[in-house]
Amino acid sequence: MRAAVLCKPGVIRVEDVDPPRVGPDDVLIRVRAVGICGSDVHYYRRGRIGGYVVERPLILGHELAGEVDDVGGDVEGFEAGDRVAVEPGVGCRKCWYCKIGRYNLCREERFMTTPPVDGAFAEHVAWPSDFVFHLPDHLSFEEGALIEPVAVAVNAAHKGEVRGGDVVAVLGAGPIGLVTLQVAKASGATRVYVTDKEDYRLRLARKLGADEVIDVSREDPVARMMELTEGVDVALEASGAISAAQDAIRVTRRAGRVVLIGMYPEGQFPIKVLEVPLKELTVRGVLRYAGQYEIALELVSSGKVNVRPLITHRFPLEELERAIRIVEERSENVIKAIIRP
Amino acid sequence: MRAAVLCKPGVIRVEDVDPPRVGPDDVLIRVRAVGICGSDVHYYRRGRIGGYVVERPLILGHELAGEVDDVGGDVEGFEAGDRVAVEPGVGCRKCWYCKIGRYNLCREERFMTTPPVDGAFAEHVAWPSDFVFHLPDHLSFEEGALIEPVAVAVNAAHKGEVRGGDVVAVLGAGPIGLVTLQVAKASGATRVYVTDKEDYRLRLARKLGADEVIDVSREDPVARMMELTEGVDVALEASGAISAAQDAIRVTRRAGRVVLIGMYPEGQFPIKVLEVPLKELTVRGVLRYAGQYEIALELVSSGKVNVRPLITHRFPLEELERAIRIVEERSENVIKAIIRP
Amino acid sequence: MRAAVLCKPGVIRVEDVDPPRVGPDDVLIRVRAVGICGSDVHYYRRGRIGGYVVERPLILGHELAGEVDDVGGDVEGFEAGDRVAVEPGVGCRKCWYCKIGRYNLCREERFMTTPPVDGAFAEHVAWPSDFVFHLPDHLSFEEGALIEPVAVAVNAAHKGEVRGGDVVAVLGAGPIGLVTLQVAKASGATRVYVTDKEDYRLRLARKLGADEVIDVSREDPVARMMELTEGVDVALEASGAISAAQDAIRVTRRAGRVVLIGMYPEGQFPIKVLEVPLKELTVRGVLRYAGQYEIALELVSSGKVNVRPLITHRFPLEELERAIRIVEERSENVIKAIIRP
Amino acid sequence: MRAAVLCKPGVIRVEDVDPPRVGPDDVLIRVRAVGICGSDVHYYRRGRIGGYVVERPLILGHELAGEVDDVGGDVEGFEAGDRVAVEPGVGCRKCWYCKIGRYNLCREERFMTTPPVDGAFAEHVAWPSDFVFHLPDHLSFEEGALIEPVAVAVNAAHKGEVRGGDVVAVLGAGPIGLVTLQVAKASGATRVYVTDKEDYRLRLARKLGADEVIDVSREDPVARMMELTEGVDVALEASGAISAAQDAIRVTRRAGRVVLIGMYPEGQFPIKVLEVPLKELTVRGVLRYAGQYEIALELVSSGKVNVRPLITHRFPLEELERAIRIVEERSENVIKAIIRP
Repeated sequence: MRAAVLCKPGVIRVEDVDPPRVGPDDVLIRVRAVGICGSDVHYYRRGRIGGYVVERPLILGHELAGEVDDVGGDVEGFEAGDRVAVEPGVGCRKCWYCKIGRYNLCREERFMTTPPVDGAFAEHVAWPSDFVFHLPDHLSFEEGALIEPVAVAVNAAHKGEVRGGDVVAVLGAGPIGLVTLQVAKASGATRVYVTDKEDYRLRLARKLGADEVIDVSREDPVARMMELTEGVDVALEASGAISAAQDAIRVTRRAGRVVLIGMYPEGQFPIKVLEVPLKELTVRGVLRYAGQYEIALELVSSGKVNVRPLITHRFPLEELERAIRIVEERSENVIKAIIRP
Repeated sequence: MRAAVLCKPGVIRVEDVDPPRVGPDDVLIRVRAVGICGSDVHYYRRGRIGGYVVERPLILGHELAGEVDDVGGDVEGFEAGDRVAVEPGVGCRKCWYCKIGRYNLCREERFMTTPPVDGAFAEHVAWPSDFVFHLPDHLSFEEGALIEPVAVAVNAAHKGEVRGGDVVAVLGAGPIGLVTLQVAKASGATRVYVTDKEDYRLRLARKLGADEVIDVSREDPVARMMELTEGVDVALEASGAISAAQDAIRVTRRAGRVVLIGMYPEGQFPIKVLEVPLKELTVRGVLRYAGQYEIALELVSSGKVNVRPLITHRFPLEELERAIRIVEERSENVIKAIIRP
Repeated sequence: MRAAVLCKPGVIRVEDVDPPRVGPDDVLIRVRAVGICGSDVHYYRRGRIGGYVVERPLILGHELAGEVDDVGGDVEGFEAGDRVAVEPGVGCRKCWYCKIGRYNLCREERFMTTPPVDGAFAEHVAWPSDFVFHLPDHLSFEEGALIEPVAVAVNAAHKGEVRGGDVVAVLGAGPIGLVTLQVAKASGATRVYVTDKEDYRLRLARKLGADEVIDVSREDPVARMMELTEGVDVALEASGAISAAQDAIRVTRRAGRVVLIGMYPEGQFPIKVLEVPLKELTVRGVLRYAGQYEIALELVSSGKVNVRPLITHRFPLEELERAIRIVEERSENVIKAIIRP
Repeated sequence: MRAAVLCKPGVIRVEDVDPPRVGPDDVLIRVRAVGICGSDVHYYRRGRIGGYVVERPLILGHELAGEVDDVGGDVEGFEAGDRVAVEPGVGCRKCWYCKIGRYNLCREERFMTTPPVDGAFAEHVAWPSDFVFHLPDHLSFEEGALIEPVAVAVNAAHKGEVRGGDVVAVLGAGPIGLVTLQVAKASGATRVYVTDKEDYRLRLARKLGADEVIDVSREDPVARMMELTEGVDVALEASGAISAAQDAIRVTRRAGRVVLIGMYPEGQFPIKVLEVPLKELTVRGVLRYAGQYEIALELVSSGKVNVRPLITHRFPLEELERAIRIVEERSENVIKAIIRP
């Protein structure tokens, strides 16, 4: 099959590779839409994320939807032609984390694009059927691909215990921030303030329901939010910037919750530690999702979350490198670029 | 001042009574809208609810909004002319329940219309200022009065831990059921099924967002919901009927939550006890609200909950008895009747 | 191998049967101690529990410990001679309940003695290695077998959110009640009241730390507990009697928690429904355990829970029927009888 | 009455001052024992803690027990001669934080020694009766004074959700660390590791139940704990040192909880932010306590927590300055010094 293979940092080649082996519990999926995520950019540039190093050619891409082409012998509930979205991480099903429902923390998790597990910038992917979900007729493959970031946002809303009447800050208006904004709204937040430094992203945030948007390149987001409120109930940090994590802690009211969704740089960074006991904050981290894909799918399917406006670019498989560079540079007002193999 | 006084069961007289005393922490409110609640009907007919007995003339009515006429010497933040909604229950502020934030469980709670605390079917009410809330300009007094049942629904959504993607049953489409439906939707429920035996109530439920309505006089609600779903995530029982409490337990999926909001009759009633451990259900009760009035106000103010369609009848103070009888008989397709003193 | 086979209700025969097949992920265990549980008695007498019907010969017994005899090809961490305790229920690992950590609610759970899954009244058992736990040297096989009821008690303490300073009622002083008492104490309960109708059980409860024991055949347990306290924070119902479930609801204070651990009879039973909203109770059910076996093992291993005093009887495999009858009749002051194959 | 008055930083004078005014809801207490806390040392040296500045003479001391001398007109349940412990912080009873049971976060909280509220290094204190608790006969006044740090530890155990079977790190073996260790044990922790840099404190930790103590002046506490465990379930940081907060985050396992109890210096300090999402940690802060004094009293009264071994020094009121200096310098193997006015 054709696949876009990361050969070494900065070099992706579209070439013929062996198609994936379909195990007895697997579904073989013809990939129809794959979103480009920040982690794809990271692997492309540096060949590693933290301890995960690309040591042999790897296929990137983990936000996907497609059509069932074939199923393994033990699979029930799927047949050729079914339209599906795919949850790209599968736990070992045996360790304590898997048993308590936190399989995203499993040390043996098979996550697409975490070396050596290939991802979805290819014609086909084979994946365990219980991590494959039927896509309702009224959702497109592109919408199906973007269930993935919505699942991250659902995890964030759960960790932040967002509920009816909450005042919420979403820091960062990239793809994660923009779906987090919507999931917060769908979870009952009555006022959501969104920050970013890109004007075009803030305009989209406003369109998607932000009650107030704050351009951090022009004004201090903490000062601005403290004018709007006595401190937010929940701050959802979706940018991955340390400065935003700092702001999240400062802008949250006493007894409030701070959720760190971003993949921050390694190492130590200055934080106002005293704020945590003084305000009795709860600070929680989000690593992908566990048991939240169905919920994300339900939210998109019901119309409570709309991912279509996030899709600004579409490319064939052959133009993956160009697409990655656009996402990397945030050029052409890109939010989410989709590869259509 | 003029007030509608319950003299004995079945007899209300509108007469002149002494105006309320305004303590240093109190706000004196000119009542502008008061909803009639099922408990008002109950006191009117029987002169008691459980251990609470009307032993001397009592003014009923506890769902209210109005205008500030005067403030006590220690009150800050209010002045004559302010438009306000009133939370009608105030704890003793000293017992363990009050200290842990559950003042609705305080044994010394002063709740309007719980003898001997007079209520709001009168020209004036005096009430502690921290249980009085500013009504935004865009909300009417009638909407302000109905913050009360919305606060009950917020408590129910909290107790049921309703969140994004949940499938929810609301049993009963009276005033409480109809706001509970909306709060569940606002809290992220993607599918809400509503039951009742009155067709006109179900039609309104549909209009207010119910995804499916079930007329229990025509079909078995449990059987119908089990066709629609494998069991709901949360069942919110808002009718006060034992049969609905039974249905709520049966229709909830494993690991699901059942919330009993209703005021059920005293005594013992047949329940499938074994369902609770077999499905590891969580069953919780709701008694009014505590710390949820602000949230209810925010939900109505933001438009996430719309109480206007519930208001079907309006009466002057003089016609309170007639209004109570309409509510009691569910005649004239009544949902909520409002008294405008 | 030799095994005690339930041929039909009331008839167990010890005979030679095929040894269990050892799958690649399985551990083959030579059974050294098995506790007799109330459900074994139930299957023995009636040949069924609820919808689970014994349709072909079945080996009972699910509270077990033993020695590893062999391991499947993919098993790591175990070798012949290892001393182990066995968690007797394994989920399908794929459904939503398994994914969220509630595998005890999995509809496809393989639970020993739930037909057609054979149990442990036999020389050998084969079981998935991730549900097999190393037994510390200082624990006997008999203690290892009784990790099972302790895991039920851990689930109950979690569901009841028992914590430091709580006043707790444990209803029923059978094996489950006696370990629940100890787990409640270990979880910080400062006062635990235990009820039963058998004097010898209450004496043991007292020895194991009960602060007060109440003989329900002589006094009203609710009246007595209301003399001792204003209502308990948590009531843990461990008897399976409807009357005890009723008492649990009555004796719990406002904002308290009621946990129903027992296997109650099917059908509907009279309950004071109104108590649940009036006191805003939380009522939760316990079905076995999920992710709590390690915790139970840790509690027994650390000495916080002592199961040795519960073991009153020991029998060889050949005397299983006699042992079951003693447990059934509660004769000879039996608490827990152990089979040593 | 005689009182030890902080006149300016570094100067305490024992002099005659006006006795406190006893309001209608107040109890007048003859102080019998007062613990010296780190915050007393801080105020003594610098005259301020954060924004709280000593601008006029102030009486320090907030860990106290004593005897009732007189009661205000509206007080019930107390009479002269009663032995009592005192919770030293009272919320405004009206703000949102007070209403939801988080009165420790009330901006108007009257906390003893938070200027201008006088404390207990004096012959008498007057305090609202609902924050005064009867001391059981078998507890001494000194034990009663130390309910205060135990209440902090109870809050920490609650925030850390410590429960049966947990492996816990307590960082710091000062008075707070030593009671936190005990509350963690009482809450079901089966293994507790305690760190400090003072050998005499670690020896006491061992005596009070620590399963392992680690001298941070000799070995890396994180490395050591990672030898003992795969990472602790809960880390309770009780030292106030930034390095310990850093260690707490590093030593906690995936899905674990970190509780920051300490009063850290103001400003920003280097933290491994990425650990929070990578391990999906929950980090919570503790500011004193709310609704936890009764629980602390119950734990000490039941013997689950033993504060007597912490008391190393006793002084009359006249020697307060000398006592403060001993606590400040950690000389004479001091843990807790008690003033007996």
